[in-house]
Amino acid sequence: MSTIFTKIVNGEIPCHKIAEDDQYFAFLDISPLAMGHTLVIPKAEVDYIFDLEDEVLAGLNVFAKRVAKAVEKSITCKRIGVAVIGLEVPHTHVHLIPLNAIGDLNFSNPKLSPSQEELAEVAEKIRANFE
Amino acid sequence: MSTIFTKIVNGEIPCHKIAEDDQYFAFLDISPLAMGHTLVIPKAEVDYIFDLEDEVLAGLNVFAKRVAKAVEKSITCKRIGVAVIGLEVPHTHVHLIPLNAIGDLNFSNPKLSPSQEELAEVAEKIRANFE
Repeated sequence: MSTIFTKIVNGEIPCHKIAEDDQYFAFLDISPLAMGHTLVIPKAEVDYIFDLEDEVLAGLNVFAKRVAKAVEKSITCKRIGVAVIGLEVPHTHVHLIPLNAIGDLNFSNPKLSPSQEELAEVAEKIRANFE
Repeated sequence: MSTIFTKIVNGEIPCHKIAEDDQYFAFLDISPLAMGHTLVIPKAEVDYIFDLEDEVLAGLNVFAKRVAKAVEKSITCKRIGVAVIGLEVPHTHVHLIPLNAIGDLNFSNPKLSPSQEELAEVAEKIRANFE
């Protein structure tokens, strides 16, 4: 059984894609804590981030940096916060969350419910800033 | 002006050290969200994690993995969560937090107030498991 994230990578489930390379993939969280909240994953289905091989873990973070820089340029915020929890979907995912205050990185905060159009617009902006 | 974390690295401010190498340093958070909550930092004073050079960012995460594995072996938990906020001390720091539920990674939760003896005991246990 593929994880929902593998289905997203394979295009079986639609997403608002930000970027991908041969090993990594980034797409918008559809229940974001802030507009621009992006998930970065390795394409390999590894449940727990600290079970990734060193090179894959290193590459994931360098890829996440490129994504974070694009989000920063697209969304008004002080910086991009990082969170990895991993108790829901069994496929490593790094949350990149635009922050303006410490309390913004809090998964108990109410999630936003943007429309597909709003998500598409934000994704397009971030993609245009991805280098 | 050195950051408080540089002072910790230099031994000017005491800490419950977990591990260090030439580039990275790990020590217990003294106001932990869970026992075993550890901070991992680059020795270089760089405020924002995504301003780290790619190699330093990669190395920081591989070092954090080694620390996380040691915390996991020392503390009863489901896994180690990761958070980087960075709006307080202007020196990159990765929070490694033992998690049992999604809500455990929440900086609005009340912090624990362990005694120095309790922190010393936990640090010793984690150090013994660091490879």
